[in-house]
Amino acid sequence: MTPFKIAIAGLGTVGGGVAKAIAARGDDLSARAGRKLEICAVSARDAKKARGFEVKNFVADPLALASGDADVVVELIGGEEGIARELVETALKNGKHVVTANKALLAKHGRALAELAEKKDVALKFEAAVAGGIPIVKTLRESLVAYEVQAVKCILNGTCNYILTEMEATGAGFADVLKDAQKLGYAEADPTLDVGGGDTAHKLALLAGLVFGTAPDLASMTVEGIEHITAADIHFASEFGYRIKLLGVARRTPLGVEQKVSPSMVRARSPLANVDGAQNGVMVDAGAAGPFFFSGRGAGEAPTASAVISDIVEAAAGAFRPAFGRPVAQLATLKPAPAGAGICPWYLRFEVLDVPGVLAGIARCLSDAGVSIESMIQRGRAPGEGVAIVMITHDAAQSAVEKALNAIAATDKVRARPCMIPMEAA
Amino acid sequence: MTPFKIAIAGLGTVGGGVAKAIAARGDDLSARAGRKLEICAVSARDAKKARGFEVKNFVADPLALASGDADVVVELIGGEEGIARELVETALKNGKHVVTANKALLAKHGRALAELAEKKDVALKFEAAVAGGIPIVKTLRESLVAYEVQAVKCILNGTCNYILTEMEATGAGFADVLKDAQKLGYAEADPTLDVGGGDTAHKLALLAGLVFGTAPDLASMTVEGIEHITAADIHFASEFGYRIKLLGVARRTPLGVEQKVSPSMVRARSPLANVDGAQNGVMVDAGAAGPFFFSGRGAGEAPTASAVISDIVEAAAGAFRPAFGRPVAQLATLKPAPAGAGICPWYLRFEVLDVPGVLAGIARCLSDAGVSIESMIQRGRAPGEGVAIVMITHDAAQSAVEKALNAIAATDKVRARPCMIPMEAA
Repeated sequence: MTPFKIAIAGLGTVGGGVAKAIAARGDDLSARAGRKLEICAVSARDAKKARGFEVKNFVADPLALASGDADVVVELIGGEEGIARELVETALKNGKHVVTANKALLAKHGRALAELAEKKDVALKFEAAVAGGIPIVKTLRESLVAYEVQAVKCILNGTCNYILTEMEATGAGFADVLKDAQKLGYAEADPTLDVGGGDTAHKLALLAGLVFGTAPDLASMTVEGIEHITAADIHFASEFGYRIKLLGVARRTPLGVEQKVSPSMVRARSPLANVDGAQNGVMVDAGAAGPFFFSGRGAGEAPTASAVISDIVEAAAGAFRPAFGRPVAQLATLKPAPAGAGICPWYLRFEVLDVPGVLAGIARCLSDAGVSIESMIQRGRAPGEGVAIVMITHDAAQSAVEKALNAIAATDKVRARPCMIPMEAA
Repeated sequence: MTPFKIAIAGLGTVGGGVAKAIAARGDDLSARAGRKLEICAVSARDAKKARGFEVKNFVADPLALASGDADVVVELIGGEEGIARELVETALKNGKHVVTANKALLAKHGRALAELAEKKDVALKFEAAVAGGIPIVKTLRESLVAYEVQAVKCILNGTCNYILTEMEATGAGFADVLKDAQKLGYAEADPTLDVGGGDTAHKLALLAGLVFGTAPDLASMTVEGIEHITAADIHFASEFGYRIKLLGVARRTPLGVEQKVSPSMVRARSPLANVDGAQNGVMVDAGAAGPFFFSGRGAGEAPTASAVISDIVEAAAGAFRPAFGRPVAQLATLKPAPAGAGICPWYLRFEVLDVPGVLAGIARCLSDAGVSIESMIQRGRAPGEGVAIVMITHDAAQSAVEKALNAIAATDKVRARPCMIPMEAA
């Protein structure tokens, strides 16, 4: 059989890892693919950069890869528009398989791209877009299909998880830990997409599409980052037997599908709570089949190259399935749950003035909104510094808690906007 | 496209679960398979047993399924020889896909059966044979392929894990907990295959084949069960910060591949240590891509039916790969490490007479065999009852420790054969 020709657009950490692994383990991979794998062309911003491996067949214009003789185009440029989108679209239209790590592109244009792939009967694969080396895309698309998956809860952003883990270990504040993480290369110079939750949102949208049999739908997702989490919150969480993680959660509810990214309290003994540092973790509630848990390295050269290569081998073997698990015409439209309908217990922190009647005022606002308190901690500080009041509520709708917090924030007794964090069972 | 016809041999818990799930979620599964799924025939020992679902097209002779009009035969009879083997062989020879949960059959005849499947270009799939609903077979065969997997360490037998978890929780002995487990249906009337490690060995052989690019090879595996583990061992483990699990371990070593099943100490904070009760867990050291961890329900109706159904859908979609990841002609022969060559720290427990010179004698035997001690606990008991001496060694070869224990057992100072348990890093 003729060799399977691979064109790689983008020779950064991941692209380089892919090229090196194919060079090192080509024989085994070819045996698994049933065809010899061959890199026929590569493209990168800088042809001359030292990369630690030989760059053959360099092509200056990445778009040229879409019309060359490649069987598969590996898109590792990134970005939801521009050259990455043009390359993927053109490659699919030209009947080439596409393997990509581009979560933003797929979260936004997943349905249209899946349709292009389907028309030409080629693979559109994106294992590397979510959770690095953890094969969660394939697992949700092909393995956990017998029963209706009820929910996925995941830690998908290594930068946020590293920062939260460090804050807990050192007691330092968010800004200081972020600065250190940037120095160490664990956070970007512009960290907004990571710490603001946007990166997790892109990845969660892909998993939700796979699980609910829909195309990705970012529009109905609520997204909150970790910028406002304080060392005090992490400390209080631990007093209650919890840890704070940035979770992506997608779940069926009686009112529709809830998709949200937010800092969340998870029980200290649960598997997700023990996903530390730059690791990723995914909990899948597979209905009658029970919960399954997956963890491992979610980023970096080898884990991500591992995912890209498994996709390449699958395309080469011709053993691929529709991008989102079923033909595009049979993808359902995601019915979102109304905003604020999510019900769970909440962690609330108030920074208040140490004057009479504050607690009574807070309690009244909560009670007026139908929110009842399960437990409470109040800690004094140095005189004049104010007081932290921390509460855990019983099950309450997000909208009810927000209503109460708005009323409380409008009084003159609180020093800052109150903090609310959902508590996830398990 | 014509419907994809399914014949099921064996309508026990799993077979029933498969039939029910296909009845309940046929539309979604058909969308994923690209073809309508249809159960065309079933066979079971008792046609008339009440099953909670309608049995159509009952066939008395399971072998008839191999020559009927089914596209896939689902073998859920069990056993490494006899009717199960004959059914699978005949079905493959007749050009039918086979999906099976039969670990014993594949551990023994995997290579020959894979060859039959390959000749007819049909699928031989066995996700349900290992770890129930955890998609570890597919993950090892198709996803974690880019780098050389160095090791798998796994908890694959729910009965053993349930017994060890209960022994730890209650302080009760092995025999008592086993009796309770049998009453509760967690252990078979004849528990030998489970508690003796044989079931784990079958499953480990399949995972090792997938990981090392070989056919399953039971011959070079060492297998030890949990029958001799005492409540005292579990207690001492916890004092050292460990828990005892029945682990299957397959790993590359400089001398060859080590495959073993044995009770093992795992650090209390590690993911494997926290796989409790009837759960299963698998840790994969995927070389440069790092460790990955997978856990979930390893047995029972829905988890196992989930695995069977994902295999059926894959066969129906025509998107299957060689049974052990590559064509049979390209499967390597597993080069086993010499017996006893495995090096790790060891937990040792001696039941000794409380007389002068005992400890000195033990220490001398260990030292003569080149085994050095890292830490030790000695606890007195009631007068006349003897004394337990527990030691953790530094890294030592299994053969060296066995040599020392043989010398120690030959003295008249120990009351029973000493106990040795390997300590697994991670």
